[in-house]
Amino acid sequence: MTLPAAVRIVEVGPRDGLQNEKTIIPAAAKIELIDRLSATGLRSIEATSFVSPKWVPQLADAAEVFAGIDRRAGVAYPVLVPNLQGYERALAAGAREVAVFTAASEAFNRRNINASIDESIARFEPVLERAASDGVRVRGYVSTVLGCPYQGEVPLADVVRVAGRLHALGCYEVSLGDTIGIGTPGKARAMLRAVAADVPMPALAVHFHDTRGQALANILACLEEGVAVVDAAVSGTGGCPYAAGASGNVATEDVVYMLEGMGIATGVDLAALVETGRWLAALLGRSSGSKVTVAAG
Amino acid sequence: MTLPAAVRIVEVGPRDGLQNEKTIIPAAAKIELIDRLSATGLRSIEATSFVSPKWVPQLADAAEVFAGIDRRAGVAYPVLVPNLQGYERALAAGAREVAVFTAASEAFNRRNINASIDESIARFEPVLERAASDGVRVRGYVSTVLGCPYQGEVPLADVVRVAGRLHALGCYEVSLGDTIGIGTPGKARAMLRAVAADVPMPALAVHFHDTRGQALANILACLEEGVAVVDAAVSGTGGCPYAAGASGNVATEDVVYMLEGMGIATGVDLAALVETGRWLAALLGRSSGSKVTVAAG
Repeated sequence: MTLPAAVRIVEVGPRDGLQNEKTIIPAAAKIELIDRLSATGLRSIEATSFVSPKWVPQLADAAEVFAGIDRRAGVAYPVLVPNLQGYERALAAGAREVAVFTAASEAFNRRNINASIDESIARFEPVLERAASDGVRVRGYVSTVLGCPYQGEVPLADVVRVAGRLHALGCYEVSLGDTIGIGTPGKARAMLRAVAADVPMPALAVHFHDTRGQALANILACLEEGVAVVDAAVSGTGGCPYAAGASGNVATEDVVYMLEGMGIATGVDLAALVETGRWLAALLGRSSGSKVTVAAG
Repeated sequence: MTLPAAVRIVEVGPRDGLQNEKTIIPAAAKIELIDRLSATGLRSIEATSFVSPKWVPQLADAAEVFAGIDRRAGVAYPVLVPNLQGYERALAAGAREVAVFTAASEAFNRRNINASIDESIARFEPVLERAASDGVRVRGYVSTVLGCPYQGEVPLADVVRVAGRLHALGCYEVSLGDTIGIGTPGKARAMLRAVAADVPMPALAVHFHDTRGQALANILACLEEGVAVVDAAVSGTGGCPYAAGASGNVATEDVVYMLEGMGIATGVDLAALVETGRWLAALLGRSSGSKVTVAAG
């Protein structure tokens, strides 16, 4: 068992978090959020999504937000793009890193984007080709790696195949997402181990939702397997579209607390992060999804 | 790393959980709670506390509750006793297993019971002697094992010494409690490992509060060290007297979900437990502290 000495946190609050929040946040506040996050020491902040505003009204202001942020040296600001059109809008707005997404579940892909897994990958192949020639880094998301709201079990072989394909197509990092927060540590560990047989561990990240309270335990199991990149969202934003009132992304504050407590460096100023999460929760009109923040009073 | 094949959960909701809940629950409901819990398959249920009603008004009905429960064969119903007087009241009420408590922190003992650690142990030595001659089993609690609200750091040597003393005095099991939920997995693991050098692992239990969301990760680390007894409270009752609004005991539902998901047998019917937790939360007029329960809708 070898724990990493340092972990890079990919802060997904401004995108994955806000995307599922009903309260619409003005662009200026999103810009302030991202700038506050970069000031805490976070080095990867997913800033927004260039999907159609029809699908994600919360992020209709993607170009305005991206243009407004204070881009710090050494900080990556990936943005989600669904296809080549989104990629072009993202680049026009100044993005230098993008993220593409698919699922390991056939049923989830069918329901979400009316495409098979292979068709969904085919849709962003042109993005990866263009990004390679543009020198733009691409991060890949594989969702439903531990279960699917539509098909239930997701075969491990499908997770391995999809993650391997994304990496082979040029994604520098593949984030493995338990989208519905259904996994437990043994399954998380086995899944990561299986994928890591195909994709080098340094190219893998884990992405847990805390729907059933398992996220930190799952992260711990994956750290023990050697993963050193963890997705999280400040204030645990996002909720769960499949369970009203349930927890969303694992809260970055709680991840940082655990990692720093274990002597694993994150480079993040926890007090500043807690303050930012509290500010965001107030904007959203709800209590923080971070237990560390609530305990801080 | 050897995970246990089975874990015994010690359900502490009716005592440690309710003790810190402001809403007073009538004795009949406490009796129903305990009977519902035993019906889920739980085999250890801490039923109440025979401390002075002046200190814990919620549990002033200890004798009435204990007399009213339907004692199932094979289920242990320990009750907390602070001293010989409490022990005698507990036995008169029919208890066949008791629990005693102290802390690993000098400052915590001073503030809580105006005694040093050694004095607090001296107070329940007569309990242990009497219990031995009565054939009554005694469980020991050591609190503040990973930190103290008054003195901060708690030396590992103090935890080892106090746990070792309780075991040597005849406690069949010593429960190591992170009373303020401040620990992280590396520290939890190191603490358990240090104590287990002195007290056999089968005589140890872990007791985590989820104040900072770390409880399940801490439990996972301790399972990896070989612990096979875990304290938890249905619906995550209890809160934290040192942080208003913070989470209390780790929710039994979430522990069972994790363990069963890892293939570790608990003997507990999770659906029945979720139902019981939901019923209790409604009685307390608050939402469940179990994320598994919230996710179940």
